[in-house]
Amino acid sequence: MELNGVEIEDTYAEAFPIKIARVLITGATKRWALVAAQEAKGFGTSVIGCPAEVGIERVVPGSETPDGRPGVFLQICTFGFKSLEAQLLWRLGQCVLTAPTAAVWNGLPTAEKQFNIGFKEKWFGDGFESERNIAGRKVFAIPEMQGEFLIEENIGAVDGIAGGNFFVFGENQMAALTAAESAVDAISILEGTITPFPGGIVASGSKVGSLKYPKFMKLSTNEKYCPTLREKVPDTKIPPGVNGVFEIVINGLNEDYIKTSLKAGIEAAVRIPGVKKITAGNFGGSLGPFKFNLHDLF
Amino acid sequence: MELNGVEIEDTYAEAFPIKIARVLITGATKRWALVAAQEAKGFGTSVIGCPAEVGIERVVPGSETPDGRPGVFLQICTFGFKSLEAQLLWRLGQCVLTAPTAAVWNGLPTAEKQFNIGFKEKWFGDGFESERNIAGRKVFAIPEMQGEFLIEENIGAVDGIAGGNFFVFGENQMAALTAAESAVDAISILEGTITPFPGGIVASGSKVGSLKYPKFMKLSTNEKYCPTLREKVPDTKIPPGVNGVFEIVINGLNEDYIKTSLKAGIEAAVRIPGVKKITAGNFGGSLGPFKFNLHDLF
Amino acid sequence: MELNGVEIEDTYAEAFPIKIARVLITGATKRWALVAAQEAKGFGTSVIGCPAEVGIERVVPGSETPDGRPGVFLQICTFGFKSLEAQLLWRLGQCVLTAPTAAVWNGLPTAEKQFNIGFKEKWFGDGFESERNIAGRKVFAIPEMQGEFLIEENIGAVDGIAGGNFFVFGENQMAALTAAESAVDAISILEGTITPFPGGIVASGSKVGSLKYPKFMKLSTNEKYCPTLREKVPDTKIPPGVNGVFEIVINGLNEDYIKTSLKAGIEAAVRIPGVKKITAGNFGGSLGPFKFNLHDLF
Amino acid sequence: MELNGVEIEDTYAEAFPIKIARVLITGATKRWALVAAQEAKGFGTSVIGCPAEVGIERVVPGSETPDGRPGVFLQICTFGFKSLEAQLLWRLGQCVLTAPTAAVWNGLPTAEKQFNIGFKEKWFGDGFESERNIAGRKVFAIPEMQGEFLIEENIGAVDGIAGGNFFVFGENQMAALTAAESAVDAISILEGTITPFPGGIVASGSKVGSLKYPKFMKLSTNEKYCPTLREKVPDTKIPPGVNGVFEIVINGLNEDYIKTSLKAGIEAAVRIPGVKKITAGNFGGSLGPFKFNLHDLF
Repeated sequence: MELNGVEIEDTYAEAFPIKIARVLITGATKRWALVAAQEAKGFGTSVIGCPAEVGIERVVPGSETPDGRPGVFLQICTFGFKSLEAQLLWRLGQCVLTAPTAAVWNGLPTAEKQFNIGFKEKWFGDGFESERNIAGRKVFAIPEMQGEFLIEENIGAVDGIAGGNFFVFGENQMAALTAAESAVDAISILEGTITPFPGGIVASGSKVGSLKYPKFMKLSTNEKYCPTLREKVPDTKIPPGVNGVFEIVINGLNEDYIKTSLKAGIEAAVRIPGVKKITAGNFGGSLGPFKFNLHDLF
Repeated sequence: MELNGVEIEDTYAEAFPIKIARVLITGATKRWALVAAQEAKGFGTSVIGCPAEVGIERVVPGSETPDGRPGVFLQICTFGFKSLEAQLLWRLGQCVLTAPTAAVWNGLPTAEKQFNIGFKEKWFGDGFESERNIAGRKVFAIPEMQGEFLIEENIGAVDGIAGGNFFVFGENQMAALTAAESAVDAISILEGTITPFPGGIVASGSKVGSLKYPKFMKLSTNEKYCPTLREKVPDTKIPPGVNGVFEIVINGLNEDYIKTSLKAGIEAAVRIPGVKKITAGNFGGSLGPFKFNLHDLF
Repeated sequence: MELNGVEIEDTYAEAFPIKIARVLITGATKRWALVAAQEAKGFGTSVIGCPAEVGIERVVPGSETPDGRPGVFLQICTFGFKSLEAQLLWRLGQCVLTAPTAAVWNGLPTAEKQFNIGFKEKWFGDGFESERNIAGRKVFAIPEMQGEFLIEENIGAVDGIAGGNFFVFGENQMAALTAAESAVDAISILEGTITPFPGGIVASGSKVGSLKYPKFMKLSTNEKYCPTLREKVPDTKIPPGVNGVFEIVINGLNEDYIKTSLKAGIEAAVRIPGVKKITAGNFGGSLGPFKFNLHDLF
Repeated sequence: MELNGVEIEDTYAEAFPIKIARVLITGATKRWALVAAQEAKGFGTSVIGCPAEVGIERVVPGSETPDGRPGVFLQICTFGFKSLEAQLLWRLGQCVLTAPTAAVWNGLPTAEKQFNIGFKEKWFGDGFESERNIAGRKVFAIPEMQGEFLIEENIGAVDGIAGGNFFVFGENQMAALTAAESAVDAISILEGTITPFPGGIVASGSKVGSLKYPKFMKLSTNEKYCPTLREKVPDTKIPPGVNGVFEIVINGLNEDYIKTSLKAGIEAAVRIPGVKKITAGNFGGSLGPFKFNLHDLF
């Protein structure tokens, strides 16, 4: 199958379950909402070594937020609800409560699972905090040097999906990278998904386990997809003429959101000159129960 | 004392010792170097609740980096060398090794304390890694999907200083915030310091301990500096006409760097209309051994 | 009438007819589409002294563009069709044809008035140009050093409206400015309108004519709205406690678009602490036939 | 000659005289200074079809500006002093006087040629303007809605140079473009030069005159450097394996500044994988008296 002249391999992305909390951060302007969200997002690429996978879902105008100010949806993902609660407490308490003009709202108010993060953050107010109702939501107002910090009582979470993905093969690194950037542009305005890696892009797609250091490396470079090893690895997956590969990893609230983002990302990537092929990563079904066949997206 | 018509209070900022590692991240362009650095910087405002305090020191051109590409100096701070090593391993391994076009260089090559982070990250290469010498530095080249990731063998660290600070009092929140932003602009090009909070700015300056919840809150809102509590707190520090306060917190490699940044930040802040006063935070000497008298800066 | 506690004056914005051409500029990524659009937008605040009023309407994803790449709608406005054609020729030929990865599409394909700009720009191809059909649109492909530049044959234009506006009164300059920025954020995602001044904001609202230099100044500072002249001008419009005023000027394809943008902008502005009042500029009906009553917007 | 493994052709860039005015625009923050400068910069790529060539030279901190606020140096270039004065009047009057928090300072106070732009812009004040001395500079203060606009009495200009250039040949468009972007990053912090095209980059390098439309086209695509015409043009300059070429055009205050920027730009460009060759554009000496031999730069 080809899209804009680029081969889409007949394969699937394999993904796995994760817990996802969703927060809406508003600010005086779009820029200040993003400052808070970006601080809360960082050190959040992969649960292999980060305390959580975190990403900015999308920016919304004041007409879609409880306080009428521009907002940013943030998704925070961990394997269990206990670690998720800890990440919410620390990331919101340290990175948003401290951020100029920011406020925090429940991004999943109808989810069954709710964490009373606002209730716990309000203790920072040292007794001077108060309760308020804004747009039908129960909110705590915490006095701060800047004025006041507002945080909704609860933050909702759901069983979501991590690891949706596709790979962009490029004639060289810059062609593949620009295609990956264009894919992230397309995904960044869609509801329900995040691309948690730096700039939304993975430079270092990996395999589970290690050939040489199996005792202490849970995951290692995926040598079959490394262009510089094409001549050295017998079962290389890198065809001649490909010298750069980037992966887009997508987490999301459900399968449909991930499908929509995979499709939009791939459609954007194939528009870039020098892109040679699109494929996806899977582990033969050993990693997770979710399968996204690339050909079924179109 | 007045600066541009703004009162500078005769007080001092109190700061304390911290361990600081310094990393130089380069990228294909300034933008890609910043993408990696911002991911590594996040969730890094305060060691109260973040695994480290992290900040972008400044951007440098290719003429000042070992690989001739644009670079970003990043400082990572924790209380001990052991936690610092762990933060280096995880933040560089998860946020920079994974970032498009990024490479990692030792930002303190002559420091006595050196962590062999590059040596440990190279295991990701699963035996396909190799050693190289670039610009006199020992570097490991790790094959990746994107091509190659370069990381220097060692990352240096020193005994540095955390918590240098000043407060900006504004007629309202936006005057104080714009002044704080202008201060961060000025500090962001200076060598040796970082401003680890969101956008470089603290909205929620705090006090040690808690009046109401002393058992479980190690720190809480500094009610004496909260404008909305001016009428409710007898010993308020907020004069009439002040409705917004922001704090700039500065960490740095030594006292001189912090003095230079405090001075540049204050000189920038007092240029903004609506700024009423500059002061600083201290705890009567109980917190730390470093004192920065504001009046001595000028 | 009050909105979020801020007085909305019972007055109207007066606006006048202008010719508007609408161009869709696409690029390899959103960033490159914006680079081209920003160059084409500049020196385009007011037809008083600029060759045209130009603004970025909004950014659209590849799913809404003929070539599947991210795009930016640009509006170019002048008083007559002849000058509009000249501006299209020069701005597209000098600022978009020259821009990395950019392509030009008709932003008003069903308008009655069409300029064959693509037909004229193709001469740059010096006989090497060719004709193509993309997504049902007739396009010229011009060989360039970068590869190829695509431009649609025609660019449409309509009778539009210039000078829709409102004023933000703030306690000080920074409160008014942040409110103006938040208003521009809100308008910047809406269809059909532009805010052509720097950053979308006017710092120097003016009156028609001049008191002191009537012979050579067609317009001059609106002294009644200057906060620093409050004590010197007997009929000042600046109430006590107001020290900064910014104006948002909105051009658009029709009255409904302008109403929607005025409403969204005002609703955003009143959310900022320190905003004291919203009003609008008119000249008693002498300037133009379009009136936008502020109270009718809500 | 090779640089980082990339061939530097033994040729020269040919450049020609132009008049350059230099303005320093300051703002409340770096961001607001840039907003004003970008508006004043636009529609300013080439005097072929723009009223001036305009570019941002570099950003400077408040410690280097008369009002202690962050600043941006802007260069405005035309062939004659008369048109230069008109461009100064309109671009500063329409794009900077109107911009939030901006002020205008003389960027060449010791140049022999001085335009009394401030004296003329002050008439906008309609008699309410006043004169002031700031940091030894004679300044006019014009009351505006935002507060006050400051502009220095004179703006200096010199005989400068336009058209310094080099070409980046890439394996494909994205490799060449990323290299061009990295070159612009490097040049953008240097004193004395601008890169006036969109994003600092020319996608459409041209030749003087036209083969097919000589009567009405003063310049046209340089078919010898068009990758898509490699097979069709007998004397093509595009070697096999090159599919994208971008040009960096540099204007500057004198030859030394241009040499420094050419060198820094080329050194940055050759770091990008997929760059195949660097060359430069000249017209056999017919265009201008300035020659920059590429090999002499290193």
